[in-house]
Amino acid sequence: MNSENTTPVTVIGLGLMGRALAGAFLRAGHPTTVWNRTAAKADALVAEGARLAPTAGEALAAGPLTVICVTDYQAMYDALGTSEPLLSGRTLINLTSGDSAQAREAARWAEGRGARYLDGAIMAVPPVIGTAEAVILASGPRADFDAHRPALEALGTASYLGTDPGLASLYDVAGLAMMWSVLNAWLQGTALLRTAGVDAATYAPFARQLAAGVADWLPGYAEQIDNGAFPAEVSALETDVRAMAHLIEESEAVGVNTELPKLIKAMADRAIAAGHGGEQYPVLIEEFSKPR
Amino acid sequence: MNSENTTPVTVIGLGLMGRALAGAFLRAGHPTTVWNRTAAKADALVAEGARLAPTAGEALAAGPLTVICVTDYQAMYDALGTSEPLLSGRTLINLTSGDSAQAREAARWAEGRGARYLDGAIMAVPPVIGTAEAVILASGPRADFDAHRPALEALGTASYLGTDPGLASLYDVAGLAMMWSVLNAWLQGTALLRTAGVDAATYAPFARQLAAGVADWLPGYAEQIDNGAFPAEVSALETDVRAMAHLIEESEAVGVNTELPKLIKAMADRAIAAGHGGEQYPVLIEEFSKPR
Ligand SMILES: NC(=O)c1ccc[n+]([C@@H]2O[C@H](COP(=O)([O-])OP(=O)(O)OC[C@H]3O[C@@H](n4cnc5c(N)ncnc54)[C@H](OP(=O)(O)O)[C@@H]3O)[C@@H](O)[C@H]2O)c1
Ligand SMILES: NC(=O)c1ccc[n+]([C@@H]2O[C@H](COP(=O)([O-])OP(=O)(O)OC[C@H]3O[C@@H](n4cnc5c(N)ncnc54)[C@H](OP(=O)(O)O)[C@@H]3O)[C@@H](O)[C@H]2O)c1
Repeated sequence: MNSENTTPVTVIGLGLMGRALAGAFLRAGHPTTVWNRTAAKADALVAEGARLAPTAGEALAAGPLTVICVTDYQAMYDALGTSEPLLSGRTLINLTSGDSAQAREAARWAEGRGARYLDGAIMAVPPVIGTAEAVILASGPRADFDAHRPALEALGTASYLGTDPGLASLYDVAGLAMMWSVLNAWLQGTALLRTAGVDAATYAPFARQLAAGVADWLPGYAEQIDNGAFPAEVSALETDVRAMAHLIEESEAVGVNTELPKLIKAMADRAIAAGHGGEQYPVLIEEFSKPR
Repeated sequence: MNSENTTPVTVIGLGLMGRALAGAFLRAGHPTTVWNRTAAKADALVAEGARLAPTAGEALAAGPLTVICVTDYQAMYDALGTSEPLLSGRTLINLTSGDSAQAREAARWAEGRGARYLDGAIMAVPPVIGTAEAVILASGPRADFDAHRPALEALGTASYLGTDPGLASLYDVAGLAMMWSVLNAWLQGTALLRTAGVDAATYAPFARQLAAGVADWLPGYAEQIDNGAFPAEVSALETDVRAMAHLIEESEAVGVNTELPKLIKAMADRAIAAGHGGEQYPVLIEEFSKPR
């Protein structure tokens, strides 16, 4: 426990996640003030040493730093509404899920009331809060992140993304897209292999190795995107689509779902139709960057 | 170079891939006989020491082991058609891409003619053939794989999958589904982040770490599938779909493609509609295992 853990912290919102956050602050030694619309949710925390503020305003006033984590941005405005004047001179770290536009608007709102504001996102479930496994994304002024990093580190591994307060939301959903995509591809493969009597445990190590192997290509592929040039150093899109057709045919033949295989091929077909058949996979960034 | 590299090998099919295979055998020291419908494609290999057989039958007859790699299974039957009687007593390793049903049928066909048969798949592009990076999947009788493993290792990292000759094709397309899914999720995230001025190189390490991290969950998640029980130890599907909605909304708001986000949510919505909202993600195996 280092000396910075004596910084008082306020937590507003004591849902599943808010209670986990307040609990982690308490365990790290922070004097912790809490407030929740439904006061009874504070009971266990109070028993662990938290101070329950009677109003959101008094919670804000209790110290320099308030972490808020409620259902959505509207709930944040509702919770802080009448206490707005008390934001002045304080730092608000908002760990409520939302989109990048809401985060930027909330930053303007808080800064307009004299507060310092960081927008964050939590890539973790409540039981791992307080361990290194919990990733806490943060975006906003660098100085504010640096000042409150020790407090954020009580919650998990704090990662600073940049000045734009919208970044935490963007990285959050981008990371979730990766998570579900790896899981879905693994499920597609597991479904295929189970038709041949291969159990999920037998297939999983192969899928794991493939995913980690492909992940290693990303920094190199990113260079093609940043350079805007997609030479087919490894393979051309039109070679890839032949194998995509095999994936669809095999999925159909053994009677498993074909939606993911068809989406994969549809994206590539469109890039080929746009004249990119001789280029390499990352040229698909053009398709992914278009509304559809 | 070990003594087993003196085993004579025949390669039938000298397209882009077949030439790479024959070249790797030659470099590993195998006496190599080749045949191709269009004989001129053998010229460079002959200059490197390959023997060009005048007919597919004479190529087959040149030694105990023939590796064939042509466009598709029909091309294999075409190429070997009139030489069928010469298959007897030989081993045929078919590295042509196809589906699991074609592989099983080819195994019956070859075995009916007195040949030993392994079906394989190549997870690599021609330039890496002959290096450990090239993964050669093989399925069929274990004894035949063991007997010819040294020859296959001249081509890359040989991986034996099981007795069912359909397995190589199934693992191949399953692995490709993982590859494209990781790439697509990374492109989705890159497209999202670029709207905030974050370049691809800045985002890539985050995506890479996420993909590798999620890959590590697969063996544990596989246990749920094999046990047929999906307790929400980490998170329930109905919590996940709220975040899936955020991914769609964010993608729409910043004007990038929403097809992948929508497919992710559609699969989960269907599992919830089927009564699995309180269970964990791998319960989606039921959706992935249904034709659709
Ligand atoms: N749980 C997770 O696994 C997880 C993971 C990552 C991120 N998150 C995010 O964390 C945030 C909170 O999630 P949670 O799981 O804690 O949700 P939760 O258990 O449903 O709690 C919601 C919280 O918001 C408060 N709230 C809602 N509307 C309000 C209003 N109009 N005025 C004042 N307070 C209001 C609730 O107060 P009452 O108690 O009075 O209803 C409660 O404290 C969400 O944005 C969620 O996306 C959650
Ligand atoms: N290239 C890759 O990156 C890659 C990667 C993994 C797997 N593969 C698989 O490897 C296999 C071969 O691919 P490739 O890239 O070498 O293709 P390719 O360059 O188009 O070569 C096709 C080969 O098949 C032969 N062929 C086609 N129809 C025939 C017929 N009716 N009778 C006899 N021979 C016939 C061709 O002979 P001619 O020369 O006489 O036309 C040629 O040798 C395919 O199944 C492919 O999916 C390729």
